[in-house]
Amino acid sequence: MGALDEGHFDVELENGVKLGGCIELGFEEQPETLAIEDAVRVLLHGLGEDVNREGIRKTPFRVAKALREGTRGYRQKVKDIVHGALFPEAGLESGGGHGGGAGGMVIVRDVDLFSYCESCLLPFQVKCHVGYVPSGHRVVGLSKLSRVTDIFAKRLQDPQRLADEVCKGLQHGIRAAGVAVVLQCAHIHFPNFESRKLEPNHQGWTKMLVTSRSGVYENESSNDWAEFLTHLRFRGIEIVEACSNGSLQQSWCPSQSSLKVATANSAMTNAVVSILQSLGEDPLRRELVGTPARFVTWLMNFRCSNVEMKPNGFVRTQKDSIKTNGNVRHDEEDISTELNLSFWSQCEHHLLPFHGVVHIGYYQAVVVDHVDRSFLQQIVHSYGFKLQVQERLTRQIAETVALHLGEDVMVVVEASHTCMISRGIEKFGSNTSTVAVLGKFSSDSAARLKFLQSIPNSFQTAE
Amino acid sequence: MGALDEGHFDVELENGVKLGGCIELGFEEQPETLAIEDAVRVLLHGLGEDVNREGIRKTPFRVAKALREGTRGYRQKVKDIVHGALFPEAGLESGGGHGGGAGGMVIVRDVDLFSYCESCLLPFQVKCHVGYVPSGHRVVGLSKLSRVTDIFAKRLQDPQRLADEVCKGLQHGIRAAGVAVVLQCAHIHFPNFESRKLEPNHQGWTKMLVTSRSGVYENESSNDWAEFLTHLRFRGIEIVEACSNGSLQQSWCPSQSSLKVATANSAMTNAVVSILQSLGEDPLRRELVGTPARFVTWLMNFRCSNVEMKPNGFVRTQKDSIKTNGNVRHDEEDISTELNLSFWSQCEHHLLPFHGVVHIGYYQAVVVDHVDRSFLQQIVHSYGFKLQVQERLTRQIAETVALHLGEDVMVVVEASHTCMISRGIEKFGSNTSTVAVLGKFSSDSAARLKFLQSIPNSFQTAE
Repeated sequence: MGALDEGHFDVELENGVKLGGCIELGFEEQPETLAIEDAVRVLLHGLGEDVNREGIRKTPFRVAKALREGTRGYRQKVKDIVHGALFPEAGLESGGGHGGGAGGMVIVRDVDLFSYCESCLLPFQVKCHVGYVPSGHRVVGLSKLSRVTDIFAKRLQDPQRLADEVCKGLQHGIRAAGVAVVLQCAHIHFPNFESRKLEPNHQGWTKMLVTSRSGVYENESSNDWAEFLTHLRFRGIEIVEACSNGSLQQSWCPSQSSLKVATANSAMTNAVVSILQSLGEDPLRRELVGTPARFVTWLMNFRCSNVEMKPNGFVRTQKDSIKTNGNVRHDEEDISTELNLSFWSQCEHHLLPFHGVVHIGYYQAVVVDHVDRSFLQQIVHSYGFKLQVQERLTRQIAETVALHLGEDVMVVVEASHTCMISRGIEKFGSNTSTVAVLGKFSSDSAARLKFLQSIPNSFQTAE
Repeated sequence: MGALDEGHFDVELENGVKLGGCIELGFEEQPETLAIEDAVRVLLHGLGEDVNREGIRKTPFRVAKALREGTRGYRQKVKDIVHGALFPEAGLESGGGHGGGAGGMVIVRDVDLFSYCESCLLPFQVKCHVGYVPSGHRVVGLSKLSRVTDIFAKRLQDPQRLADEVCKGLQHGIRAAGVAVVLQCAHIHFPNFESRKLEPNHQGWTKMLVTSRSGVYENESSNDWAEFLTHLRFRGIEIVEACSNGSLQQSWCPSQSSLKVATANSAMTNAVVSILQSLGEDPLRRELVGTPARFVTWLMNFRCSNVEMKPNGFVRTQKDSIKTNGNVRHDEEDISTELNLSFWSQCEHHLLPFHGVVHIGYYQAVVVDHVDRSFLQQIVHSYGFKLQVQERLTRQIAETVALHLGEDVMVVVEASHTCMISRGIEKFGSNTSTVAVLGKFSSDSAARLKFLQSIPNSFQTAE
């Protein structure tokens, strides 16, 4: 990482960005909070929403709270975290060697965090592994390695810069002989609403592994870095191809490639510029210049609209007419299923994405020669791509499917909510499931159970 | 769960326990904080520690902070969490059925939390799965299911009571048609220092699965409960044998069976009684009566002592004497290893346990006919069973092994720290690794790497 210009570092990383009024006023009255709330109302209006609708009336405040808490790192300093948590530990007494407070490696693995993508303003997940080699017979409380990492994660970030800042911050804060950082980052994938060409089993995450190292870990003639990676391997973390330290790269954010930035609504982009300013950021910083337009383009995927549905290759025949033809099918009591239809949506409470899969079960009250999966997928997308709550999405899909395939319909929606892994709650790995049942399914609990049991175990984590 | 006496419930669960002075004074000056700090000093003194030693000087404050934050649920109310997060959602419009805000199941799975065991005062991990059936066309923000659970987790608890209180709290708070709760709890195992008979591959966790249900989930003629469990199965959560709702059981806490409660030091037990009072609990509550003596007995496993080591079956022979006999072994450059020696220790910063495995590698400068693994295990335990930091533990093991097996020694300690999964940090699944190297290992990085690569992938979670 080279020599540290520590004076510069103090100003840039430790002091962060000064925000006025934090101490004097309560959070709800602070001008930054109010400015973000105003900006979010502009965004909701731009989406065609009624800002006084009960579900979203408090969304501006929720978004302001989440964004300000989620970028609290600008107001935190490494030295405040580390202060009082540096402990004297003797080095080895017998013979030459390293250990205790003198040169023996210390590693903390598998720390879950989240950060905000500077390119699109969405949160991304970080699994963090940090090591250091103590010097000066001084060790730091183990939890501080996680807390210091969080200072830099709670800012608008790019994975490589985050890794570098954590590395520099720890090197500087604990005066280590060397610091090693590996971050496994996962960014939500951007659906392309226009073409709706989502891969059927898309995991929904763009992944990136970044590394940063200083001091002894940069020494090519020693194995310190290789040793650090071996410690990660004990825990099942294989570093296949590590990016080189501090290398310049294209942004990993899918907004850079998959979103065609539309001619942006200037009121909305100006609102996002105002949010950046309220968070204490400089909207003219090179990496942030395109962020408002990208965020608005992403958000406009979820504008309030009634998408017209065009059933293709969908032939309806009355069951009675088939019976008349002597063509009675004895499997008519079987449940037909379409499983794992992917969906994308936007939580109207927090303006954060949620995504997952939809399972549809139905009895063929109407006999259909050919149920086109893409038509069901179209129904799912038409209700996904708007501000939603998962319960309503589930109900709307069920009602619409019933219009086309008969009244006996059951819908299960399984989702990961970005609002559950970010914000104060930070429940990584949590997952929700909602159900709507119509017709026969509402009275026949054996039918419900039969359909549920036909759904395969879909357990998968974001990693 | 039967009818709720809601007035009673309001008082017992919602108001929790009143704590004076919380608003007027800063946390550090509050009498409860100061009383816990005093009590912790008594405990440290009883362990034979110098309360002014730098590593533990701030431990009383750290323990007070962790305990009071970790039992903040006594001062929180369900209605404050749920208030403002109940949203109107229409039920199904077409045909009969359930969905949206009317009867369609809503499930949140895999929420990680921790709670405090009322039997021994140690934190335990909770993986929480909650479902409910909305009524009155009202749904609750998904994150509130986790937040309400946390109110009851952040108290001194027993798994079954925790499940029942979460169930009642949600039923009451969101007026659901039914609430279903499954908790997978993991309690740290208690080592028996006296006999030191730890199973070699002990996972270190006692596990318990508890369930609680109300409303429609209690209806034996419907499948609602079976449907809920099927939703958990999608995520790989198999409920093999669920405890019956509200059944009385023996405490799961290992302190009830594995610890022989010694004649307790009355100053220390009185100190723990004072801690219980400061947390707002009633030390005379039936479940808490034996807690101070059990906690002190557990703590006294880690009293400051110099355990005498007795090498058994351990024959030292000078390498030279073997050479003289013409018995030169060409594998003398091979690294000998003892892997996965279990250890237990107590973090001196937080008075919380950490445990894991020790790997020892050495070159036989002294040729030993038979290295008794139990002797190395004895060295590990003698440094484990005291107030420690992981770095010092690693160094002390290395130095002591070197005294017996020659100067070329490498020690790796892999640990899970209770202080990393509880307290404010709550980094579930995180794991630390520390290294000490002596003699040849300190200069030969290839030897270090070779030893590290001989350690098998030990990835395992607490579940």
